[in-house]
Amino acid sequence: MKAAIAGASGYSGEELVRLLLRHPRAELAAVTSRQYAGQSLARVFPKFGNDPRAKTLCFTEPDPELLAKTADVVFLALPHGVAAGYAAPLLHLGCQVIDLSADFRLKSPARYKEFYGKDHPAPDLLSKAVYGLPEARRAEIKNASLIASPGCYPTSILLPLLPLLKTGLIQSAGIIADSLSGLSGAGRKAELDYLFVECNESARPYGIPKHRHLSEIEEQLTLAADRPVVIQFSPHLIPLNRGILTTLYLAPAKPFQNESQMAAFGDQITRCFQAAYAGEPFVRLLEAPALPDTKNVAGTNVIEIAWRLDPRTGRLIVLSALDNITKGASGQAVQSMNILRGFAETDGLC
Amino acid sequence: MKAAIAGASGYSGEELVRLLLRHPRAELAAVTSRQYAGQSLARVFPKFGNDPRAKTLCFTEPDPELLAKTADVVFLALPHGVAAGYAAPLLHLGCQVIDLSADFRLKSPARYKEFYGKDHPAPDLLSKAVYGLPEARRAEIKNASLIASPGCYPTSILLPLLPLLKTGLIQSAGIIADSLSGLSGAGRKAELDYLFVECNESARPYGIPKHRHLSEIEEQLTLAADRPVVIQFSPHLIPLNRGILTTLYLAPAKPFQNESQMAAFGDQITRCFQAAYAGEPFVRLLEAPALPDTKNVAGTNVIEIAWRLDPRTGRLIVLSALDNITKGASGQAVQSMNILRGFAETDGLC
Amino acid sequence: MKAAIAGASGYSGEELVRLLLRHPRAELAAVTSRQYAGQSLARVFPKFGNDPRAKTLCFTEPDPELLAKTADVVFLALPHGVAAGYAAPLLHLGCQVIDLSADFRLKSPARYKEFYGKDHPAPDLLSKAVYGLPEARRAEIKNASLIASPGCYPTSILLPLLPLLKTGLIQSAGIIADSLSGLSGAGRKAELDYLFVECNESARPYGIPKHRHLSEIEEQLTLAADRPVVIQFSPHLIPLNRGILTTLYLAPAKPFQNESQMAAFGDQITRCFQAAYAGEPFVRLLEAPALPDTKNVAGTNVIEIAWRLDPRTGRLIVLSALDNITKGASGQAVQSMNILRGFAETDGLC
Amino acid sequence: MKAAIAGASGYSGEELVRLLLRHPRAELAAVTSRQYAGQSLARVFPKFGNDPRAKTLCFTEPDPELLAKTADVVFLALPHGVAAGYAAPLLHLGCQVIDLSADFRLKSPARYKEFYGKDHPAPDLLSKAVYGLPEARRAEIKNASLIASPGCYPTSILLPLLPLLKTGLIQSAGIIADSLSGLSGAGRKAELDYLFVECNESARPYGIPKHRHLSEIEEQLTLAADRPVVIQFSPHLIPLNRGILTTLYLAPAKPFQNESQMAAFGDQITRCFQAAYAGEPFVRLLEAPALPDTKNVAGTNVIEIAWRLDPRTGRLIVLSALDNITKGASGQAVQSMNILRGFAETDGLC
Repeated sequence: MKAAIAGASGYSGEELVRLLLRHPRAELAAVTSRQYAGQSLARVFPKFGNDPRAKTLCFTEPDPELLAKTADVVFLALPHGVAAGYAAPLLHLGCQVIDLSADFRLKSPARYKEFYGKDHPAPDLLSKAVYGLPEARRAEIKNASLIASPGCYPTSILLPLLPLLKTGLIQSAGIIADSLSGLSGAGRKAELDYLFVECNESARPYGIPKHRHLSEIEEQLTLAADRPVVIQFSPHLIPLNRGILTTLYLAPAKPFQNESQMAAFGDQITRCFQAAYAGEPFVRLLEAPALPDTKNVAGTNVIEIAWRLDPRTGRLIVLSALDNITKGASGQAVQSMNILRGFAETDGLC
Repeated sequence: MKAAIAGASGYSGEELVRLLLRHPRAELAAVTSRQYAGQSLARVFPKFGNDPRAKTLCFTEPDPELLAKTADVVFLALPHGVAAGYAAPLLHLGCQVIDLSADFRLKSPARYKEFYGKDHPAPDLLSKAVYGLPEARRAEIKNASLIASPGCYPTSILLPLLPLLKTGLIQSAGIIADSLSGLSGAGRKAELDYLFVECNESARPYGIPKHRHLSEIEEQLTLAADRPVVIQFSPHLIPLNRGILTTLYLAPAKPFQNESQMAAFGDQITRCFQAAYAGEPFVRLLEAPALPDTKNVAGTNVIEIAWRLDPRTGRLIVLSALDNITKGASGQAVQSMNILRGFAETDGLC
Repeated sequence: MKAAIAGASGYSGEELVRLLLRHPRAELAAVTSRQYAGQSLARVFPKFGNDPRAKTLCFTEPDPELLAKTADVVFLALPHGVAAGYAAPLLHLGCQVIDLSADFRLKSPARYKEFYGKDHPAPDLLSKAVYGLPEARRAEIKNASLIASPGCYPTSILLPLLPLLKTGLIQSAGIIADSLSGLSGAGRKAELDYLFVECNESARPYGIPKHRHLSEIEEQLTLAADRPVVIQFSPHLIPLNRGILTTLYLAPAKPFQNESQMAAFGDQITRCFQAAYAGEPFVRLLEAPALPDTKNVAGTNVIEIAWRLDPRTGRLIVLSALDNITKGASGQAVQSMNILRGFAETDGLC
Repeated sequence: MKAAIAGASGYSGEELVRLLLRHPRAELAAVTSRQYAGQSLARVFPKFGNDPRAKTLCFTEPDPELLAKTADVVFLALPHGVAAGYAAPLLHLGCQVIDLSADFRLKSPARYKEFYGKDHPAPDLLSKAVYGLPEARRAEIKNASLIASPGCYPTSILLPLLPLLKTGLIQSAGIIADSLSGLSGAGRKAELDYLFVECNESARPYGIPKHRHLSEIEEQLTLAADRPVVIQFSPHLIPLNRGILTTLYLAPAKPFQNESQMAAFGDQITRCFQAAYAGEPFVRLLEAPALPDTKNVAGTNVIEIAWRLDPRTGRLIVLSALDNITKGASGQAVQSMNILRGFAETDGLC
């Protein structure tokens, strides 16, 4: 099987390169980048320099015809709004498309316009796209031609929340997600705000209270809860290269009044997560006293999940950690490719 | 005026040294440390090596009699539980005592036992102690002999919350405080968990759901609200040397139903913070689009505060940033000393 | 005395603002920045927001006439090549000028052209300029109208080397300077190479073997040795905000053949450094076992110096640490201003 | 093939676990740790928690008999001086031993005593041990029973230097190696000096001028040059988790007098490195303008090498970068295991 990456010079693109170069069943057949067209992968990213393929494979301009001739599956690691322009021709030419941008993550063009400030560039494709969260939509991914790979924050929030909402263990109202992200999440862009000196020794919120990722988070939560869900989401930037740590503040559907009710509710949560994720290769359910830590998932496709009940406030607190570039972007996209192509789901990811 | 520091080898003690060496009206007369007794300040902390006083001033054993002979004001930068043993003899010998530990921050010995797991070592002094948060208790500090300087998390939470609770603008129930702390908050202790390699590239929660600092936070909030307040508090460690960033999730006392009500509520919040802090030298009320950032307060005694209203969820989000070692510990303690001794409150702190 | 800063939005400019706002004898009267013209200091740099002056002082376009009307001393914190265009009119209008760029650090226009690749824009001013290294040229600075403040690497190399060369204790041939710099040294420029993710977990050399700073380093060393000096200089970028650590590899003028000769040579070095720097407020000569550490000079105007003799190789190794933005740039420039204006040399710097 | 790790709780041990868990031909059969005996790998290192083997494999006490029963190859990731006590019994019991400590890296017991301050604990084994630098000693490793895996600094210095010395292109006198190391090099030890706060924003030399690693470096260089080699070696600690960056200052055997001689010499160096390393899977010879960067080798078994000639000083500067825990320790040890057992040399390392 041959794979191509359109937009391989950003952090997600670079991680796709890393994962596909060592993938046992996929061959990296093309990489595109306006900026680096004509240069070899090894030259642009010295870290891949010992890979024979990286020495010979050169960046090209992002031409859909050429991509379709070269590859069976095309990953779009392009900016939001740009990716959509490539999806239609690629699909038309018979490629399977895995899009890492936000362009096809929403079902509603209106919601897209509300959050992205313009009309959707290819609204007819929205219904065709499958939201590529493997743990939640494995069967649909298997038969998809266009996969909208989820964002990093959404993955860190949805995987802990979906089973709890689906089983009705928590209230769908009042959910709060407080997230910390490393700087690769801001992308490989030359902007003052992301210089080392501006980020080192800096912890700061941004995008409060209405970050764009809310649109896909709430759409997925609404589907899971089968009623409209609106959440509070506060992202922060902290001085990490990679990693998202999310803390979720939740209210049990049925308040616990005493210790034994709390223990019983705890058992239900354990069973809920076990039922959802016990067999999942990339979900790590932590047992107390362990708590999620971004350093334990860096460079991997794993999400760590833990939870605590607070007898003083009656709340359920759920915590997750993942690598925003791997499970939060490129690793998850490769996981989807594995499902789509009938490979072992862990191929190239362990 | 002569000042002494008992326990000057930890991060709070070191910061007290820095602040007192350059203080225009206080003379650093003694520093104690079991570990470094007999060595000069300049030898133990090369960074102070160009200060003539640091070359001659040597660490001594922490003997209350000696401290009382040498100093008018004694700062206790000792571990929790140890400080209390020094306060009584020092007070008896006529010193003014500013304690940076948690030993005298609570009024209730029962609450102390609940959170610290043992009987209070000097319960009779609890009523004598003043909670040393200058912006809230300036008048009491002026006349105190024993000042319990607040913790770093509590300062980052109380300064934003107290005016909102006192004016009744927010509900006292359901408050959530999500805090991020730099590693100096963990103290200068040789433990594996705080090694560079264990902390760099790591974001992790801890002490969830019942951190010790909750005891003093809730006691102060209860006083401000004039009714029992129980909050959710989630601390996280992130790879900073210094800094705390706190995100508070709050419910307006009277929900806003539309944009104009929201705007009106926003005006009330602005007026509330202005009334509380407009003249405060160490509180920085940020105007949108600015948001708190730990790098903008590092090494200073300033707390930054900003807020946002969310029309989608109806919540008020308040954010604060401070330096956990300065405004969160030693700077605040010096600020209290300035009040106590009738100095300008900013002496040695700008 | 009134001071102005032309180009106050870079890291050196920002540090000049910090130092001048708290200076007891200078008033910050003007700041310029094309990018931020019309905005207040407090708005552009929230960290200065509690200073009353910062709330009212607004950035202006960099107009020499206006600067000369406003200020007695003008600091030029402008890019290399740009600063020169401001110096001539400002001098003509009667200002004293302290230039933090490289424009006036060399005496020879030919050398300038060799290293900067173009003709010097104001060659007639080169002879007028004084190289503003206070510890070496205090008397000249006192009477200067145009001060060329040294670069960060040069300061870290020259202060340890000048006394050794002047006293003839070391050979002037074969000198090697290996330097590590924090990222603020790369400036506040939006370039991919200086993004957090590109710098964190990265140690890398650059500018090898002919960095521009060699020109001023060698000119000053040549003057001190009274013979042509050519050195090896290897800069590296490491993940610090601030700091330069320099390791110098030197050959004694007279090789030591045994332990007692080595000890005697060691005494000579001690005396040499003591004679040069014992009374200097900003030089810290470390006694063994202490070695320089950037964290001990961060935010200060101090340079730390230590040395070791190696009986196995016969070499003298000298090490220095300074803050590239303070002693390596803005602090040193303020130190020169203090000398120039007859203030205490430590005013505003302790 | 079954492998065991004695001392699997330090950073080298942890990295061995990571590499062996995913090795296609070796099975991790035992891990020892006094501190964690009885606990599973997954519990002590949550990051391995998704590996089925890590869930069941428990740490045991480090008993040689037990290790020999369980494993064919035993890795010793124990402190210097401790490892030697395990090697003899393990060899006697028929195991192949790969020691990551310094215990068997020297041929001379006298040299060991000079640098380690005590008599060697098993001097008779010194002649039996093979210095496990695969690129230099592949044939010997193939037939070894006891492999002394090189240190991290030595690897970063020897791989660039050995070919240059063997071909006589550089002088063996006057060599200088200036190295920067990340903090994992200091080990997983609870000491104040390695706390996050003490290391972040800190660049500092240590062990100058006589670091222990000099003993093995000079022994290997002496063998390569066939004459006694004494070098200058200056290690520094910088705030990285992983990585060593080494800058080597060298004198050509025959000085170049002009540009064409310099170019000719450059060609010789290129050929020398090509001859030595063109086919090596883990050596990356960089072409200008690329220079080594620790971030490009982090987590890999690759060493990057580049060089520059300086026409101004006549020197050759060679630079290398590697991951101190992988190519500088555990990756290299696994590479040796692969050779020893006849596996593909890259098995488990790509």
